[in-house]
Amino acid sequence: MKRRIKLLLSYDGTNYAGWQIQTGQPHVKTIQGQLERALTVITKGKLIRVYGAGRTDSGVHARGQVCHFDFPGLIPIDRFPTAINSILPRDIRCHLAEEVDEDFHAQHSAKYKTYSYSINQSYIADVFLRNYYHHEPYPLRLKAMKEAGRLLVGRMDFKGFSATGSSQEDFIRTVTELTIEQTGDKVLIKVTGDGFLYNMVRIMAGTLIAIGRGKMMTEAIEKILQTKDRAYAGPTAAAKGLCLERIIY
Amino acid sequence: MKRRIKLLLSYDGTNYAGWQIQTGQPHVKTIQGQLERALTVITKGKLIRVYGAGRTDSGVHARGQVCHFDFPGLIPIDRFPTAINSILPRDIRCHLAEEVDEDFHAQHSAKYKTYSYSINQSYIADVFLRNYYHHEPYPLRLKAMKEAGRLLVGRMDFKGFSATGSSQEDFIRTVTELTIEQTGDKVLIKVTGDGFLYNMVRIMAGTLIAIGRGKMMTEAIEKILQTKDRAYAGPTAAAKGLCLERIIY
Repeated sequence: MKRRIKLLLSYDGTNYAGWQIQTGQPHVKTIQGQLERALTVITKGKLIRVYGAGRTDSGVHARGQVCHFDFPGLIPIDRFPTAINSILPRDIRCHLAEEVDEDFHAQHSAKYKTYSYSINQSYIADVFLRNYYHHEPYPLRLKAMKEAGRLLVGRMDFKGFSATGSSQEDFIRTVTELTIEQTGDKVLIKVTGDGFLYNMVRIMAGTLIAIGRGKMMTEAIEKILQTKDRAYAGPTAAAKGLCLERIIY
Repeated sequence: MKRRIKLLLSYDGTNYAGWQIQTGQPHVKTIQGQLERALTVITKGKLIRVYGAGRTDSGVHARGQVCHFDFPGLIPIDRFPTAINSILPRDIRCHLAEEVDEDFHAQHSAKYKTYSYSINQSYIADVFLRNYYHHEPYPLRLKAMKEAGRLLVGRMDFKGFSATGSSQEDFIRTVTELTIEQTGDKVLIKVTGDGFLYNMVRIMAGTLIAIGRGKMMTEAIEKILQTKDRAYAGPTAAAKGLCLERIIY
C-alpha cells in the first residue's frame, strides 16, 4: 500500500544549491536531495521521488515549504517528523506530516504562495543576520517603496519582472498582496500571489530597493509593466534575503 | 608614535575555537587570530597583539566584545572600522574604534560585563536560530526560574558555579542583575556582573533550565552557594546559546 504524504518544511538555504536535485551532479547538495536521502534511510534503500511546491534557488530559505511523495512504509504519520528529523541535517526541519489524497500535488495543487524579502538597514551588517538579510545601509524612502508596491498588486503580465531568456510562455500572474514593513533597522517585504515567474520576487525586491534609495522613480513600475522589458527593472536582489514563507492550498 | 585603540566588536562564534589564540596551533581559527591577521594586513606585516575584554569559548557569540591594541600607523580613527571590516571575515564585524589613554586595558579596565543566554522553546528547533539558541522544547516554569535567578544576585562566592579543576583562587564575584524574559517561544536570560568565573554563566543557565523543567528545586541554588560544590549545580548549558552583550567601563 502506497500513501501520499505531505510535509511542511523549513530550511536554511545557505549551504545548498537550491531545492532541486541537479541531474548528473550527485555531489551538489540540494534540499530535495537531502530529503530523498533521508527517505532512503527510512525505507532501507528505496528511492522515493519528492515533489516540492516551490523550487527555491541556491541560498534561498524556507519557513513554509511543502512537498509530497508516495511512501511505501507503515510508519504512523504522527511519528514521521521525528523520524525524518533524526536523519536530516540540522539546517532542514520537518514540522508536520499529513496523509493526503492521491491527487494532491505540492506544486500543482498550490493556490497561493507567500515569499518574504528581508533587508538589514544597520550601518554595519549584523553578523547574526548576514545569511538571511540583504544588507542595505543607505536610507530607504519607505513611502515611495509602498507606493510602488501598490502598483505591483493585481492580475498582470509580469514579464518585465522575470529573468531574461526564460523559456516561460505565460507571464500572467496575480499578486494578491504586497506589504512593506519597517521594524527598527529591518525592512520586510512580503508578497503573496498565485504563482511567481523565475526570479520575479528578487527582481521586484531589487526594483523596490532601487526606488527606496531614490535611484529609480515610482513611475518605473508602470514602465516595466507596460513595456514588459526587464531592462527597465532594478537589479535582482541577493538570494539570501528571500524566504518561502507559506503555501496555501 | 603608538596609539592605543579600542574596538567594539560583534561576532558569530559558530566557526571559531573561541576568542583566544591557541599557542602552537596556528591552524585553529580564533577571533583574536583573525583580528591580528587583519591588523598585519593593515600595517603591511607588523605583528600587533590584541587584548580582549572577555575570552569567549568556542561557539560563544558576541554583540559587544571590546578589545584594545597599540597601533603604529597613522590611519584616521574614524576610518578604522571600514578598513578592518574590509579584511575581516563576514562573521566578525568592528562597529566602533576609539583612541584611548595608554592605561586603558580592555580586560582590566572593565567594570561590568553583560552576557545573555538564549533558549528556543519551539517544539521543532528553528533552523534560523540553530547556532544561536539552545533548543529546549519542554515547558519551562518561568516563575520558578525567576525566583531562583533572584538568589543569584549579590556579592557571593560562586565557586559552585565554576568549572571544577579551575586554577582560580578567588571565587567572590558580584552579580548586579539577572533577568529572565519570555517572548513567544524564546526565553532570554541576561546577567550582569563585575566578572564571571570560567563557565559560570553557562552553569547558571544550565541550573536555571533544570529548575525550569522541574528537575531541580529553587532551593538547590542556596545549596550550591553554601556548599560551593559544583556537583549540586545543573549541567553546563551549550556554548551556542551564550553571547557577550556588553562591557561597561
